[in-house]
Amino acid sequence: MTIDGSILIGARAVRCSATFHAVNPATGEALPQAYCEATAEDVAQACALAEAAIPLFAALEPERRAQFLEAVADAIVAIGDDLITTAMAETGLPRARLENERGRTTGQLRMFASELRKGEWLDVTIDPALPERAPPRADLRRMNVALGPVAVFGASNFPLAFSVAGGDTASALAAGCPVVVKGHPAHPGTGELVARAVLAAAAACGLPDGTFSFLPGTSNDLGAALVADPRIKAAGFTGSRSGGLALVAVAAARSEPIPVFAEMSSINPVVLLPQALASRAEALGTGFAGSLMLGAGQFCTNPGVVIAIDGPGLDRFVASAAEAMAAAEPPVMLTPGIHANYAAGVAALDANPAAHALAHGQTTSAPTRCTAALFETTAAAFLADRALGHEVFGAASLVVRCADMAEVAQVVAGLEGQLSATIHMDDADSAGAAALLPMLQAKAGRVLANGWPTGVEVCPAMVHGGPFPATSDARTTSVGTLAMARFLRPVCYQDIADALLPPALQATNPWQLPRTIEGEREA
Amino acid sequence: MTIDGSILIGARAVRCSATFHAVNPATGEALPQAYCEATAEDVAQACALAEAAIPLFAALEPERRAQFLEAVADAIVAIGDDLITTAMAETGLPRARLENERGRTTGQLRMFASELRKGEWLDVTIDPALPERAPPRADLRRMNVALGPVAVFGASNFPLAFSVAGGDTASALAAGCPVVVKGHPAHPGTGELVARAVLAAAAACGLPDGTFSFLPGTSNDLGAALVADPRIKAAGFTGSRSGGLALVAVAAARSEPIPVFAEMSSINPVVLLPQALASRAEALGTGFAGSLMLGAGQFCTNPGVVIAIDGPGLDRFVASAAEAMAAAEPPVMLTPGIHANYAAGVAALDANPAAHALAHGQTTSAPTRCTAALFETTAAAFLADRALGHEVFGAASLVVRCADMAEVAQVVAGLEGQLSATIHMDDADSAGAAALLPMLQAKAGRVLANGWPTGVEVCPAMVHGGPFPATSDARTTSVGTLAMARFLRPVCYQDIADALLPPALQATNPWQLPRTIEGEREA
Repeated sequence: MTIDGSILIGARAVRCSATFHAVNPATGEALPQAYCEATAEDVAQACALAEAAIPLFAALEPERRAQFLEAVADAIVAIGDDLITTAMAETGLPRARLENERGRTTGQLRMFASELRKGEWLDVTIDPALPERAPPRADLRRMNVALGPVAVFGASNFPLAFSVAGGDTASALAAGCPVVVKGHPAHPGTGELVARAVLAAAAACGLPDGTFSFLPGTSNDLGAALVADPRIKAAGFTGSRSGGLALVAVAAARSEPIPVFAEMSSINPVVLLPQALASRAEALGTGFAGSLMLGAGQFCTNPGVVIAIDGPGLDRFVASAAEAMAAAEPPVMLTPGIHANYAAGVAALDANPAAHALAHGQTTSAPTRCTAALFETTAAAFLADRALGHEVFGAASLVVRCADMAEVAQVVAGLEGQLSATIHMDDADSAGAAALLPMLQAKAGRVLANGWPTGVEVCPAMVHGGPFPATSDARTTSVGTLAMARFLRPVCYQDIADALLPPALQATNPWQLPRTIEGEREA
Repeated sequence: MTIDGSILIGARAVRCSATFHAVNPATGEALPQAYCEATAEDVAQACALAEAAIPLFAALEPERRAQFLEAVADAIVAIGDDLITTAMAETGLPRARLENERGRTTGQLRMFASELRKGEWLDVTIDPALPERAPPRADLRRMNVALGPVAVFGASNFPLAFSVAGGDTASALAAGCPVVVKGHPAHPGTGELVARAVLAAAAACGLPDGTFSFLPGTSNDLGAALVADPRIKAAGFTGSRSGGLALVAVAAARSEPIPVFAEMSSINPVVLLPQALASRAEALGTGFAGSLMLGAGQFCTNPGVVIAIDGPGLDRFVASAAEAMAAAEPPVMLTPGIHANYAAGVAALDANPAAHALAHGQTTSAPTRCTAALFETTAAAFLADRALGHEVFGAASLVVRCADMAEVAQVVAGLEGQLSATIHMDDADSAGAAALLPMLQAKAGRVLANGWPTGVEVCPAMVHGGPFPATSDARTTSVGTLAMARFLRPVCYQDIADALLPPALQATNPWQLPRTIEGEREA
């Protein structure tokens, strides 16, 4: 597959006047290929095509959409090593990580294909007519239908798994929603390769033109125009709090407001309980530092705050973490902009009299490197200064030293919404854990014990979501099978003749779907 | 039970300085009982109590909450005829309708009790640990949890079924969310009776104080303060578009935005296909007039627009509808304010050169009576003037005369989102219906054939929702078992020791819930 920097509006590759270049973050130098800046007119054309694709694409038999998702996965694999080397140059991420992420991306696509075949997502629910009842009851049949064309914003930190054919795209396509992707400008070549793979799969599967479009570009206005387009009915976004809130505001200001599923900001609190600290502070420190520095800390689930009772156990934890941080080579961050924001966030903590620096990772004169940073503060200071609880995207974290469990609970109660909340405990900590777990559950979409929040399994039980500002809609997840639900809405059909019903609701159940009849699951 | 006009903050009846009176719409006279105007301080106290109730109430075994909902239903029945006579005086609604609505209200409460016992609402989903896998998979368990305290706004047009213990309250309580009701000022006595019944049931069931509070009052500021309170995590509203959008704006402006489930505005299009008109225009006209005038047209699902091809069949339909409209006594509307708005809406249509009056119901000098009104316009005029597609709350409707089926489709395509969309068809209309049904589905939460949109069954398959402006969130319904989903969010528990897990997720499945294990339903 060849990269030529085009805008891909359905099957049509569109050229342009204005272009931009990606930057190799490891060198700070611009890469040679020029990429088109998509315009408002490109947005309008892609959205018109997406709207036109809806009747056919949304009504497809689930098996057909499953085959499409599998074809996308196959086409991504078929790109071969070009995909990995392109992504390495554009993101600074190492080969092993990107190969792993490619596996996750194709795995997600295949998981939604499997979900489509299972059919639970349609939630077919039938209450047959009761003509003898007074008053008679009509025949009522409910199923989920596609919400409409979806705008997807590629994420900087997952150039494959949360970008052009990532989780948002896969779940929206599975739901029957055509997708218009605004590619992340940091990895336009990676994006174009994947977009061409999606389009090749769509063509091979005979899908309507407009099922998928790809708009590269660097401007915020492009994203705003996409969310503002009246044909778009929902948006999926992973990124910064300010970026997510800007899109939420655009969506709310439309004459027809739409949902924006923005996964934005989380500091993923880690609570270390006393017995766990007493028995294994050093191992916890090493494990923590590994999670903190993984991928240069550029994960939504990076552990940005550690909450524990002050004392020798916590000191041992900090010493062990500091040692691990000093031993690691500073990795390349995704973009010079992310690196600059990270450096500014660390500098702000350094300058904050309420925060005290505990440890720094190695420094280097090479560009865009992430020097890990660990700070400490008191519970009172943390509760008094909201800024201490804001995400610093990268390998920075803050230890909150508490006087006792009551203060631990106060700090937890003062947290904003989170993607994850972690507790480290030994058996002897059970009483404390039992008191804290409901509080952590109230703050987070995922609660975990004796592990680290980085590493999000893609499976039915996963929740990668949580109360604001972790996401803009706590009732959803952007990872796992439940992610499809974001792009569906229920419709009830009343007394519609069987031949005119969608196949999913017809009496003979031609798609052999699981169904609920009169409130009971069919055997 | 005695009415004394108190604010009911949990178990505490609070007195006040400022009061208001309800008006008997049939006479236009104020009723004698004075009711408290709840204040911002009452809001804060009720919300603090609701937040304090969450840990206990949300964690209750579903059987306990089911018993509570049944106790509420029993307590409402136990009020006896006082409830009916109070509601008659405050709303002008006839006895039979209110007795019916009481049955619907208690039926809804019992339905959610049954749902609680079935347990599907928890959506228990378990992916057990895979320690041998590389990398190992953690033990992951997902369930739904209560979103938090919910604000419910009583609706004017359902003083029982969508008010203090109506569908929003029942579904929120079922989900484990404490509820703070802002009572509708048109029926404060009805509201207080029901609120006292809810509180008596809560006390009898030993529920935490603050599970339920009732705030009577007339000001919009009261409602805004309730939605703005940081402890409130969602709101349910049924009412006008302007009222709903005002609350949505308050919710969006919070430092932690929350969802407002507002059911707002719908004109419920009715399409009459040619053969149906040819074969039974008169019966359709009579049936339409009955649906239009039912409850003085004060239903969210009132048929506000009729779309059909012009011709003798449509003329016969109009003549038949006009005859039925002329024969009916003009009923009392719910409030003088609603009557004034209705009269203004009809006057605006009378004054609109694009609309032509076809028929009016009887007029009378008695106050607050609804004179039904039927207008006509052309497809071109309807498409050109957005105002013609706005809801006039009451028994007013507009016939859109189309040249052919292409124009019918254009008019349908030009509609805003709707709660319902109706098609009348004979067998010979099947081709036309097949073409229109996907378009109607794209616009509405419920699509029905050969019936009338008024009359919303409360059952698992029902959807009382739809794209904006029918509701503020097309992914939800406010009627039927699915209404509970509005007030739940998923949480994933990772590697939490069995004894520390919520009972719903424990290995022995002590609540005997339906579960999905490794993506498959347990037998």
